[in-house]
Amino acid sequence: MPLDKLTIIGAGLLGGSIGLAARARGLAKRVSALVRRPESVANCQALGIADEVTLDPAKAVVAADLIVLCTPISGMAGLAKRILPDLKPGAVITDVGSTKRQLVAELTPLCAGKNAPFVGSHPMAGSDQSGPSAARSDLFDGTVCVVTPTRDTDADALATVNDFWAGLGSRPVVMPPDTHDRLVARCSHLPHLLASALAGRVLDAEHGEEQAQLCASGFRDMTRLAAGSPVMWRDIVGSNRGDILAALDEFADELGQLRGLIAGDSPEAIEAWLQRAKTARDHWNDSTD
Amino acid sequence: MPLDKLTIIGAGLLGGSIGLAARARGLAKRVSALVRRPESVANCQALGIADEVTLDPAKAVVAADLIVLCTPISGMAGLAKRILPDLKPGAVITDVGSTKRQLVAELTPLCAGKNAPFVGSHPMAGSDQSGPSAARSDLFDGTVCVVTPTRDTDADALATVNDFWAGLGSRPVVMPPDTHDRLVARCSHLPHLLASALAGRVLDAEHGEEQAQLCASGFRDMTRLAAGSPVMWRDIVGSNRGDILAALDEFADELGQLRGLIAGDSPEAIEAWLQRAKTARDHWNDSTD
Repeated sequence: MPLDKLTIIGAGLLGGSIGLAARARGLAKRVSALVRRPESVANCQALGIADEVTLDPAKAVVAADLIVLCTPISGMAGLAKRILPDLKPGAVITDVGSTKRQLVAELTPLCAGKNAPFVGSHPMAGSDQSGPSAARSDLFDGTVCVVTPTRDTDADALATVNDFWAGLGSRPVVMPPDTHDRLVARCSHLPHLLASALAGRVLDAEHGEEQAQLCASGFRDMTRLAAGSPVMWRDIVGSNRGDILAALDEFADELGQLRGLIAGDSPEAIEAWLQRAKTARDHWNDSTD
Repeated sequence: MPLDKLTIIGAGLLGGSIGLAARARGLAKRVSALVRRPESVANCQALGIADEVTLDPAKAVVAADLIVLCTPISGMAGLAKRILPDLKPGAVITDVGSTKRQLVAELTPLCAGKNAPFVGSHPMAGSDQSGPSAARSDLFDGTVCVVTPTRDTDADALATVNDFWAGLGSRPVVMPPDTHDRLVARCSHLPHLLASALAGRVLDAEHGEEQAQLCASGFRDMTRLAAGSPVMWRDIVGSNRGDILAALDEFADELGQLRGLIAGDSPEAIEAWLQRAKTARDHWNDSTD
């Protein structure tokens, strides 16, 4: 049964893709999008991201059944405060933020106080591109979306959010916000920071022009994430410092072990270390095909 | 002016691609390939990798103007010793090995003693696939090939090798073996080891099944290299230990600086660190398009 009205707050890569996918799949009778800049209205309309694109928060959310916050995480609480007075009772709010502990702790009581249940979400989908023109209706196909209820989360609201992501082509995986943040520190935040560290250090001018000339396709893959938005990633890092520090330490420990094997000139041990990684990666890759 | 005869020693991804590219581009009147396993003969012939595919070293190299060693680096010196007695005087030998210092030091006097000048090469082209069936005639298009002469290298032989790589679609970049090994430790060997460390540690069973479920496209990019051959990479690491240890230490230092910024909760400094990496990566990416 489609929603009567779905509202997207912010129409970048994720918000725009939600709009395109929801319209393509008939998940809502009407899709409304709130944007910040006047020039985005015509742009998002031309892209077909929503039936209605507006600069007016009240107009965007009025009568909506489900509201998805798709702005950078640092702006979500402020936006929630602005739209809460105009929501219909029982409207469900979710988001697409990359960290969940802080956000869920802040938004859950804020929204509950206005009779609008909040359920945190993190669609594990992305691109090295950003903005509404990078949006794609198939961005969520075959991806995982983590949904992070707490002990107090309304069961109907949780079901609405799970159904919504499944409807977009994603597979909802439910876990507590803390667990989510610990796991994504390792598999998402750590890789991003490694890509930035690699790009920043290897391409440093001190190494000369020939260094950059020798960077090839492997280096390209390993640094693609470094092209992401520094502002967005500054916020992600700031909202998950403890888990990211733990992931960095765990990784440094792994590199330290490898260093010992190389310094000790142990070919068999180095091969076993490489084989363990290959086996784990191949197994994971096969299981996600 | 095409070579009369080009010989490929070993027909995996690189050797096979050299054969396909040389034939497609008319670089040699005849291409011969030496393979190790009987079943590879028909396979490589069917793939069109060479005019002649043989198990016989003497037959493969007789009358060849240029011989390219395309086996794992650990086997190259042994193979060179086997083919040297059958080479025509002045035949040029090169290779595709990923490290150059040890190999050039060993092969230069060995080959010079038989009147066959050796010039080291490292085509910066690859794939996460291996074997002759992954070979492609366009593998070298737009890539860099490092050519590593020494003070004693014959100028004509160097010109032959440079022209050969240029003929395959690659851009030869000439530098001493030591410089090559130091630069690739940073931009090729380090990324590979980071990919393996990331895959091995994040996907370790101790983190549970949910950890693997949350690995998405960024993780896929960042661990692709970990699927490479552990035996081949064991040899690469073993032949460039000093430079790789230095690159690991340099990277650990960069991660340590980042750790300090995160632990100190410095959003501006974290953003600046991320921005520096993005600027360097974007600039490099634009310059290689």
